[in-house]
Amino acid sequence: MEPILELELNLAELKRGELLDSLHRQLSTAIMDGRLKAGLRMPATRKLAQSLAVSRNTVIGVYDMLVSEGYLYSQLGAGTFVADVSLPAVSSTPVQSIDPRINDYWNHPVRFDVESGVQSQWDFSVGSPDLSEFPFSVWQRYINRQIRLQSKGLLAAPDPQGQANLRQAIAGFVSHSRAVACHVGQVLVTTGAQQAFDLIARILVKSGHTRIAMEDPGYPMARMAFSAAGAQIIHIPVDDEGIVVSDIPASVNIVYVTPSHQFPTGVAMSAARRAQLLALAAQHNMVIIEDDYDSEFRLTGPPIDALQTHDRHASVFYVGTFSKCMLPDIRCGFVVAPDWAISALTTAKQQTDWHNPVVTQEALAQFIVQGELLRHIRKMRRVYRQRYEAIVTSLNALADRKARPLPILAGVHVAVAVESQWSSKEIVIRAKQVGIKLHSAKEFSTGNYNHKLLVLGFGHISQRAIPAGIEKLINIL
Amino acid sequence: MEPILELELNLAELKRGELLDSLHRQLSTAIMDGRLKAGLRMPATRKLAQSLAVSRNTVIGVYDMLVSEGYLYSQLGAGTFVADVSLPAVSSTPVQSIDPRINDYWNHPVRFDVESGVQSQWDFSVGSPDLSEFPFSVWQRYINRQIRLQSKGLLAAPDPQGQANLRQAIAGFVSHSRAVACHVGQVLVTTGAQQAFDLIARILVKSGHTRIAMEDPGYPMARMAFSAAGAQIIHIPVDDEGIVVSDIPASVNIVYVTPSHQFPTGVAMSAARRAQLLALAAQHNMVIIEDDYDSEFRLTGPPIDALQTHDRHASVFYVGTFSKCMLPDIRCGFVVAPDWAISALTTAKQQTDWHNPVVTQEALAQFIVQGELLRHIRKMRRVYRQRYEAIVTSLNALADRKARPLPILAGVHVAVAVESQWSSKEIVIRAKQVGIKLHSAKEFSTGNYNHKLLVLGFGHISQRAIPAGIEKLINIL
Repeated sequence: MEPILELELNLAELKRGELLDSLHRQLSTAIMDGRLKAGLRMPATRKLAQSLAVSRNTVIGVYDMLVSEGYLYSQLGAGTFVADVSLPAVSSTPVQSIDPRINDYWNHPVRFDVESGVQSQWDFSVGSPDLSEFPFSVWQRYINRQIRLQSKGLLAAPDPQGQANLRQAIAGFVSHSRAVACHVGQVLVTTGAQQAFDLIARILVKSGHTRIAMEDPGYPMARMAFSAAGAQIIHIPVDDEGIVVSDIPASVNIVYVTPSHQFPTGVAMSAARRAQLLALAAQHNMVIIEDDYDSEFRLTGPPIDALQTHDRHASVFYVGTFSKCMLPDIRCGFVVAPDWAISALTTAKQQTDWHNPVVTQEALAQFIVQGELLRHIRKMRRVYRQRYEAIVTSLNALADRKARPLPILAGVHVAVAVESQWSSKEIVIRAKQVGIKLHSAKEFSTGNYNHKLLVLGFGHISQRAIPAGIEKLINIL
Repeated sequence: MEPILELELNLAELKRGELLDSLHRQLSTAIMDGRLKAGLRMPATRKLAQSLAVSRNTVIGVYDMLVSEGYLYSQLGAGTFVADVSLPAVSSTPVQSIDPRINDYWNHPVRFDVESGVQSQWDFSVGSPDLSEFPFSVWQRYINRQIRLQSKGLLAAPDPQGQANLRQAIAGFVSHSRAVACHVGQVLVTTGAQQAFDLIARILVKSGHTRIAMEDPGYPMARMAFSAAGAQIIHIPVDDEGIVVSDIPASVNIVYVTPSHQFPTGVAMSAARRAQLLALAAQHNMVIIEDDYDSEFRLTGPPIDALQTHDRHASVFYVGTFSKCMLPDIRCGFVVAPDWAISALTTAKQQTDWHNPVVTQEALAQFIVQGELLRHIRKMRRVYRQRYEAIVTSLNALADRKARPLPILAGVHVAVAVESQWSSKEIVIRAKQVGIKLHSAKEFSTGNYNHKLLVLGFGHISQRAIPAGIEKLINIL
């Protein structure tokens, strides 16, 4: 018999009470993993019931559940169709147009989809900070002062490496907050951390030869920057001490890590691993890229030094950003680079886009030097710490060990290991259906990562809303 | 006899009155072209006089002239040394540090030296616009409005392609001012024109295979962007109709041109050449990059359409910038790209630095839509036209055909063909010594360009100062 649906459905040997659940499960899974594609018209209930030898009421019941859950949608008079349930924030869309004039890499890249502005009742998404407490009026004063200087022709000349005032301020800032030791000549100002990865990749990667070890799961945008430059990515697993250093082959040239707050698991790299990684790099002349993206927000425990602090072989590129501790729209990050690389990096910056806006750089330098940034960070550290504690407290009180937060020292998100009948992908979709936005660690993995690990950001959710959100989440596990 | 100076000086068969001039000429030329290196200690006058068999007074006289002209400098008790006479604005410094961890290209790039802030009495340098008339207080209002929206959480979400409002404003602006026909989906917002070149190079260049035809002399920063991506640069000469299209090999994949106002000669590409170039590109499936960098400032004659306007084969990438018609520090340019390339370009932009600052983009969109930009351009067009006419009038009145301005239609600099005993490099140095800052076309050439062509920018010099500056310049030819 010709199958009604291009999908193998197995309902044999099931008791009557299990039929509905099983059919629902098989169809929803097929929709989620794309075997039933968005826009496909589902067979009529009567036909599907016939072909499966179940009652039509069972099929109608399953369709109704799938519609209410958002897997299917009905169009009056046209039938029932498979909905687009692709994950919101981190799904990757292949580029449509392929043209022989475009080179291979850019004919087939993946785009990192920026989430649409749909608000969720409980927003645990990651990546952007809470701006509701940012001192915008103070920042506006700093910007206005620089525009006035510019109008009088008194703005400093642009420097491709970054304005000296800002590089001085950054050197002081990382020394104070992260014990990173550097002189002003080692600092390069970039358009956010992303441009830092891009410029480092440009100068270091020998296309087709360079191998870079990256965390899996890990930060996809850093991965893309190195792929685009022609590096081969070697995926290294992560455990509760961070990247598994013993799995890094001696042949890699570069290691990219997020030691303060591994992305996305949130764990801090242990002191032993740090020493092991620095020794490995020194032994094999590897370069380490230390992405310290939201280390300013220390939540618990004593501070752990940056890798850069203990680097005695000029092998660490320390990358920071003002997107998290300040404003994403400031589009400003930096690299503290070894002396041997700073000239090439500066030239690459100049050939890429000349320099960052001088007005913003000089305003930011003043904002740092006058203590405004540290004041804001201290305030936000309190806010984030309260939210973090609310998440941990709610989980401990409600989850009965079905959802266990991984320990973190710093940052604006926490990973939660869960036990559930559902896969982490299914949990994310089911959560969305009840108004919870969150991520799974698997979304950030390219490999075979199969831990049921959810990622809960607390940059967007108020402390007050957390207990109800956590309760709702636990209910769907 | 061991030479006193590692330099062959030829003073034979000269009459006594010619000795001093000839020695001066030979030494200054050797210093300028680097055969006598900066910092070298010159031989004592007595010794050099002996070795050349001339009077010591002659050598003392020549040294005195060279010191007063800045070729040599004296240090009390230490002797006389060769000064650093490297050209200020466009000299290229090789990167110092070479490290095996850096790839080949970035171990040997050239840096584009940004001029130090030394003021000249007559500043004919090119590149940056006159900001004294820019409505900074208006611009500040537009920025402040966006910061206020941001503080209320009302700023639009960032779009890697550029904010829709700004792309709409740009599409309207280029349609009005340059008859460029495009829809908002074809516009990509970039960090200045430089990032536009960089992104285009990234997606189009197949490293080691792509050949790009570029104007010689031409804009060095565009050349560097394509070199960095691994393209082979084919240098095509320029005459008074622009790039010599018949010299472009059919095998090139990309042609980069500045048709409105060739950089640096200032000539407009003739209508015949434009048609010829478009036909060539269509025939051989070439891509054209049209850099229209300061076309907004039309000075004389009727407007000439952009190449993009007449492109029927989706082969033109039209690149514009707000650095010249507005503010360099706004760090905003754009590409109007063919439909087949926009998706890859947008992904490349995202992987490079995510997006331009939203505050600046939305403020600029309003600034354009409210007519502020066109108001400023109209004002500056009058200012620049008056300066241009002052230069031409002064040259015609004073130069006696020794210095002939090349015709231009638009822009903020004009090239001047000169007859002189000195090379154009020597003229630039001699001009500097009397307080005139200018460029020669040869500085922007990598090849065998040997026309004596000076490049006079009028973005920095007041109309009032021009006649005296031109007179001074003519005196040194």
